[in-house]
Amino acid sequence: MAEIALHRLSIAELRAADAVAVTEHYLDRIARLDPRLRAFTHVDADRARVDAAWSAALIDRGEARPLEGVPIGIKANIDVDGWPTTAGVEGRRDAIATSDAAVVRLLRDAGAVIIGQLNMHEAALGATTDNPAFGRTENPHGSGRTPGGSSGGSGAAVAAGLCAAALGTDTLGSVRIPAAFNGVYGLKPTNGLLPDDGLVFLCRRLDSIGPLARSVADLGAVFAALSPGAATSPLGRVATLSSVDGHEMEPAVRTAYTAATMALRGLGLVVETVATPGLDLAGTRLAGFIESAREAAATFAAERRSGGTSGQFNALMDFGSDASAATLAAGEAAMADAAEILHRVLTSHDVVLLPTTPQAAFAHGRAPNTQADFTAIANIAGLPALSLPAGVDADGLPVAAQLIGRAGSEPMLLELAARLDTILDAYRFPADFA
Amino acid sequence: MAEIALHRLSIAELRAADAVAVTEHYLDRIARLDPRLRAFTHVDADRARVDAAWSAALIDRGEARPLEGVPIGIKANIDVDGWPTTAGVEGRRDAIATSDAAVVRLLRDAGAVIIGQLNMHEAALGATTDNPAFGRTENPHGSGRTPGGSSGGSGAAVAAGLCAAALGTDTLGSVRIPAAFNGVYGLKPTNGLLPDDGLVFLCRRLDSIGPLARSVADLGAVFAALSPGAATSPLGRVATLSSVDGHEMEPAVRTAYTAATMALRGLGLVVETVATPGLDLAGTRLAGFIESAREAAATFAAERRSGGTSGQFNALMDFGSDASAATLAAGEAAMADAAEILHRVLTSHDVVLLPTTPQAAFAHGRAPNTQADFTAIANIAGLPALSLPAGVDADGLPVAAQLIGRAGSEPMLLELAARLDTILDAYRFPADFA
Repeated sequence: MAEIALHRLSIAELRAADAVAVTEHYLDRIARLDPRLRAFTHVDADRARVDAAWSAALIDRGEARPLEGVPIGIKANIDVDGWPTTAGVEGRRDAIATSDAAVVRLLRDAGAVIIGQLNMHEAALGATTDNPAFGRTENPHGSGRTPGGSSGGSGAAVAAGLCAAALGTDTLGSVRIPAAFNGVYGLKPTNGLLPDDGLVFLCRRLDSIGPLARSVADLGAVFAALSPGAATSPLGRVATLSSVDGHEMEPAVRTAYTAATMALRGLGLVVETVATPGLDLAGTRLAGFIESAREAAATFAAERRSGGTSGQFNALMDFGSDASAATLAAGEAAMADAAEILHRVLTSHDVVLLPTTPQAAFAHGRAPNTQADFTAIANIAGLPALSLPAGVDADGLPVAAQLIGRAGSEPMLLELAARLDTILDAYRFPADFA
Repeated sequence: MAEIALHRLSIAELRAADAVAVTEHYLDRIARLDPRLRAFTHVDADRARVDAAWSAALIDRGEARPLEGVPIGIKANIDVDGWPTTAGVEGRRDAIATSDAAVVRLLRDAGAVIIGQLNMHEAALGATTDNPAFGRTENPHGSGRTPGGSSGGSGAAVAAGLCAAALGTDTLGSVRIPAAFNGVYGLKPTNGLLPDDGLVFLCRRLDSIGPLARSVADLGAVFAALSPGAATSPLGRVATLSSVDGHEMEPAVRTAYTAATMALRGLGLVVETVATPGLDLAGTRLAGFIESAREAAATFAAERRSGGTSGQFNALMDFGSDASAATLAAGEAAMADAAEILHRVLTSHDVVLLPTTPQAAFAHGRAPNTQADFTAIANIAGLPALSLPAGVDADGLPVAAQLIGRAGSEPMLLELAARLDTILDAYRFPADFA
């Protein structure tokens, strides 16, 4: 008889499973497979076993909470009581948190088993998760490929079945990019919607905590624990953006984007291209990056002085600090224009469809600078955005589509993503980690 | 006030238009634009004007027939009384037909104005319409590009608005390939469905006469005049073929194919990939080509003896005649297998979706040998197949999707194509011929 693949159960199924066996199974997978993936920077097996036993008792008593016994990983810039909140920075290796972040409390209250801490790009200022202090996380769909970032450990661990879901953070795309590159689902909520105490900020104005999971239903379950759900509004009109259509993207990304467009039309929705001549995607992304780098220079000044930041990160912080007044003013203008354009599109349309990234996961060491060109606008406009798998490229690497909605429209995004996902049918578990 | 673009009217609209003005408009366009396109080999303005005047009278009397006053072009291998049926062969330049082919009679009975004869690949044995005797037809979407073939004049003239619809013939793809390359709609009916007297056959077993038009509705209107319509059966399951998925195709073709798949799913149809390990697409196409070349060697023996065939065509006929018994046996086996596989797929599924061609229109002189790899199986299995525009490549050249149905399922194919077409929204009139 084949072993039951507990890491393939959905959150709904996990709530009726043997919680102790589930956590042991995930701990075993982490022990066996993470040396290859390098997604975890900290695992708390003892605490996880205690929590799993309590979950098992509640399940036995028929009192299972929404995430009962569900093993969840947490990005290393979010406080978990007793663990170091490194934010991927060497100088914070011993920054032990003395309480849980609010989002972690919410997950525990819903029954989740917080199983370990996940690697990230240094300070979240970048998207390769090739971390000079905590190691290079691999993409489970292609060894030697980046898992994206900055929440690269979250994306890789969820995709490879080393946790059932994870939290990441998203400043310019850092939940959605690793969701795209690892072929899983990621949600960046509306700016300010989720409590952010206990987060090491990269950029207060742009940061959002968000979940990653292996299905839309699981993503919705984790999000519901973080933000009990509003009702969803009827949906009729989808916009695509002419600036996106004209942007360079890999053929597989364009195929997936076109396929998603046709799928939505087939579902009976009107999909229209909106002309967005004033939208400067690259300029907006660069402006957000500079703002983040400037804030990082202040946030991590102490670690830098004591040699606890890498040369590469130092150079990025300097790039932000050295930006001229003219550059900053141009950046603010680009961001203001982008936000205004996106808000305007969302007065005539209910949702915007675009690719998540212009490319699939690239080889480590070969990062293009366009990764966040399609994601940053949601952060800058303060809007929720969801990434879902939409296809694979010729090498079998996932590519993804993204839905951006109005502020507070997460339940609608989740419902639409579920319908679209049924048609695209693009989610695949990575064969090398089965 | 802008000139009314009579060449943009649908067949339904033409039936209520000024038939004399319509035919004059089309004659004027042929005179102005065909020197650039070289789609027509013969134009009969006098006869067209007489027919148009009669159509105008019937429209005035409220007695318009289904194709009343609709200017239609006829491929040069189909008899039109008083015109040379050249079949694109120099040696048939003076082969004047003494009566209309049955399909031409049907069109005239429905009110069509038969406006001219259209260039084709020499003897229909090839798909570039670079004819040594009658000239090289251009693709209206890209000068210097092939219009495909063998019905290349039909595809180019319809696309460029030099006739409202056209007849072509299809042995291994010769209606669908020019439909694909010129971005219009083409239907190869079930083998044997339409009367074929008055046709210069290329391969009796594989030939079908079929229409090309600028919309699914127009295509259906012409087809209905040729074969009054059966009712359509409910549709549930669409197959794609693993042999097609694994076949090389240009990125834009794969994008369009994927988009069509998602569009059909969105429409609520089940789309499933059927494993077709025994299906040899290239071998089947080659076998059909050899059979056609052998038959052509017999059909055009007299013209060849008198020097009325080109050196290139002679070489192709010799290639067929020289095929060994082993090659012929292997070809028959490949064709039998392909037909059996396609018939088997169509017991579990109602329709097969595949691209029409693996590529967009190539430059004249650079023909790949894979053009008919996706089309020949319908001829060999005797099944109806419809090509519709599904996208454009980076150069703006059209690419197409193809639907193959069970024998006699043309009304269903037309209905499904209409629904799919609404979603794909890929038809574009060529800008250079507006």
